[in-house]
Amino acid sequence: MAKMLSSKSFGTFILAFSIFTSLALILPATGEWEPSWSRRAAEEAEAVAAIPCSGHGRAFLDGLVLDEKQPVCECNPCYGGPRCSEFLRDSCVANAVSGDPIFLEPYWMKHAASSAVLVSGWHRMSYIYTDGSYISEVLEKHIRKLHAHVGNAVTDGRYIIFGAGSIQLLNAAVHALSPNTSSEPPAKVVASAPYYAPYRTQTEFFNAVDYKFAGDTSLWKNNTSDNATTFIEFVTSPNNPDGKLNKAILHGPNVKAIYDHAYYWPHFTAIPAPADEDVMLFTISKLTGHAGSRLGWAVIKDEAVYQRMLEYIDVSIMGVPRETQLRALKLLNSVLEEGEGREIFKFAYKTMRNRWERLNNTLSLSKRFSVQKIAPQFCSFFQKVRGPSPAYAWVKCERQEDKDCYSVLKAANIDGRAGSVFSADDHYVRLSLIKSQDDFEILLDKITKLVAEEKGARYM
Amino acid sequence: MAKMLSSKSFGTFILAFSIFTSLALILPATGEWEPSWSRRAAEEAEAVAAIPCSGHGRAFLDGLVLDEKQPVCECNPCYGGPRCSEFLRDSCVANAVSGDPIFLEPYWMKHAASSAVLVSGWHRMSYIYTDGSYISEVLEKHIRKLHAHVGNAVTDGRYIIFGAGSIQLLNAAVHALSPNTSSEPPAKVVASAPYYAPYRTQTEFFNAVDYKFAGDTSLWKNNTSDNATTFIEFVTSPNNPDGKLNKAILHGPNVKAIYDHAYYWPHFTAIPAPADEDVMLFTISKLTGHAGSRLGWAVIKDEAVYQRMLEYIDVSIMGVPRETQLRALKLLNSVLEEGEGREIFKFAYKTMRNRWERLNNTLSLSKRFSVQKIAPQFCSFFQKVRGPSPAYAWVKCERQEDKDCYSVLKAANIDGRAGSVFSADDHYVRLSLIKSQDDFEILLDKITKLVAEEKGARYM
Repeated sequence: MAKMLSSKSFGTFILAFSIFTSLALILPATGEWEPSWSRRAAEEAEAVAAIPCSGHGRAFLDGLVLDEKQPVCECNPCYGGPRCSEFLRDSCVANAVSGDPIFLEPYWMKHAASSAVLVSGWHRMSYIYTDGSYISEVLEKHIRKLHAHVGNAVTDGRYIIFGAGSIQLLNAAVHALSPNTSSEPPAKVVASAPYYAPYRTQTEFFNAVDYKFAGDTSLWKNNTSDNATTFIEFVTSPNNPDGKLNKAILHGPNVKAIYDHAYYWPHFTAIPAPADEDVMLFTISKLTGHAGSRLGWAVIKDEAVYQRMLEYIDVSIMGVPRETQLRALKLLNSVLEEGEGREIFKFAYKTMRNRWERLNNTLSLSKRFSVQKIAPQFCSFFQKVRGPSPAYAWVKCERQEDKDCYSVLKAANIDGRAGSVFSADDHYVRLSLIKSQDDFEILLDKITKLVAEEKGARYM
Repeated sequence: MAKMLSSKSFGTFILAFSIFTSLALILPATGEWEPSWSRRAAEEAEAVAAIPCSGHGRAFLDGLVLDEKQPVCECNPCYGGPRCSEFLRDSCVANAVSGDPIFLEPYWMKHAASSAVLVSGWHRMSYIYTDGSYISEVLEKHIRKLHAHVGNAVTDGRYIIFGAGSIQLLNAAVHALSPNTSSEPPAKVVASAPYYAPYRTQTEFFNAVDYKFAGDTSLWKNNTSDNATTFIEFVTSPNNPDGKLNKAILHGPNVKAIYDHAYYWPHFTAIPAPADEDVMLFTISKLTGHAGSRLGWAVIKDEAVYQRMLEYIDVSIMGVPRETQLRALKLLNSVLEEGEGREIFKFAYKTMRNRWERLNNTLSLSKRFSVQKIAPQFCSFFQKVRGPSPAYAWVKCERQEDKDCYSVLKAANIDGRAGSVFSADDHYVRLSLIKSQDDFEILLDKITKLVAEEKGARYM
């Protein structure tokens, strides 16, 4: 499963990038090193990784332990048994609900040596880094380096802060862009359907005096000239659920935009040019696939906005955990060093492109179901025109009577997310394409059967 | 620095507790094991740990790297030079400001083998654990086990949730205890001076419609019978800053209490009995000293309150990072196995008790400065009467004219936190006693000099 660390590849590491690898200079040149206090941790981790789960699951260090033996295999959906070797055909539902980016798991299993990190018991116990902040300066530099390498965002001269996933940064940004005084009316927060539900639900949940959710952006298109009210527009590019490279709709002196660029990576879209907006949000979830790590970052032009977002993070959580920042550093370091910083993007694009093509081939046979169209586009990262590879299929039930498309699919054992969750028509359903390969294969199998049963499907 | 892993101690681990250690069953019985993909991570961690910083600092894996060499030593305050070997006498100010629990760092350096954890690149990439939650079931069980072992909180039949430090759980609890409908007036949030500032500042910062900070608890003592208004009282036990085992002051059908038990561990106080309140907050910061890990937990009796707090954490951050939960599990496992679960408490109490006695001996010579009195008390954990060992000295400038005690101490190069930060009189200053040994020695040195200069000090 894991690529062994050879002295040749080690030499390449040193030339390429130099945070962890600089340590090579004080490591013995030959293979004579023997672990001391790190031995137990290393041995435990390798033992867990070696537990066989049939390629349909994996065991974790903190997994449940039964009968005082080793951690159990945690199986992919529709697989069971002690080793995940049994396909549970009868109860199997295609789970395409969440945006869990497990499609990148095999990548990290293949690059085990460069991505593992050993956290000592005394690693960064303090609240603060040496500079007094809650933000690792070295990680921040790596993030800037990665954006420059990919060419998806301008970060020179911009401020960067971290949050507990980009989800926390949504509200931090809303807070920071809202009026700071009670003399102004609350900001109106808007988004354009179909949109990611937390823009609305989170804004309503925190129920602050300073801002209110005010519905769809289109309601305010010619109506922002009332200078007393601040408008905050969420713009998602590529959009979740439909993958479109959206732009802000509202304009004016009292309009502010939050650009959610979670999916603006070569995995999911062509990169036409570096994004350069006032407030841009990114997350490690959709870059390396580490949704569980809860690390997002904001790239911010204005210092006052930066200070208010920073205060939000400080007051609410006192920064992102130090072990998370260490692990993220290790992961980004690995991204930058493997294949000269191209390997993960090639893997991710290839995987997503393949899934999209197969899904499209199947749905092209249907008259009942359609999926969004995305044109091929020149990608500045790959330096070529490339076909689409979106994170989600935004499926439409074309028949007028299928107004609850979610239930139509559910009846065929396909679990998606209803259009209304995205404030859109329930003729639509979002299907996640970024989960495990097992999840995708099951999804495609169920869709293929559904299309085959369709009267009038082209191959019937 | 590190205790090596012997096969004898390994045997004890298996008998004692069984999460990580169960892996021993699938590990080779002899010392023949050789690291494979974990080698680089283990080697890097040991190399960084071996960087000599003169006992006045330490290097970290994610430390700044100068001249393409190894990470720099990060020195304790008042120490400098490449190896932290230079005492910076002229510029040295005793920093006793923050509650950074670095006094436990030497403990973890001594228990390196049992506390290290190796995080693989593919460790828990998903948003969720197998049970669909954001909470590690195994970690939760360890927390319950630890509370039962220490006897400081009842957790049987109680709900437990995690937050990004107990600081996030403060606002989560305020949210959950506030009225859920706009038909009720906002809850009044109160605390008793001297109190931890975020109770006020955080409540005001989030500026929600559902609650308002309403000043000192004493203002409302006989005034809570207006059934239309919910009161939420913060109760801190032991109190920050003065170490008192506080109880709720307000009572009545519309009064709810949030018990902040961050310091309710044998390190800082006798444990008279297990706490058994409706909402209790704890944090790993003041238990193991890992403030940087941002992991707090709430123990909750009522299911509806639990559900609302859980929703708050889900909506704002989608749970605590998986690497943080893994590391916390490893740390608690180590706490439970070392010295049959007594070693960290003996170390912490001994350290804090020693600091308190030395500070008291010095201040007992002064007429100008006094410090809070805490009576010896029976501790159910140590099964004996034990003297006080608080986390903070709550120092009073006794002279009427020293109404800015913070500046009096600052002039003597002692940096504390002013009484007014705790909504108390500025004749008071909080001095942190839980930082590094270097910090404490410098603090005591400065105080000793200040007392020696005092006219009328007993030994002059």
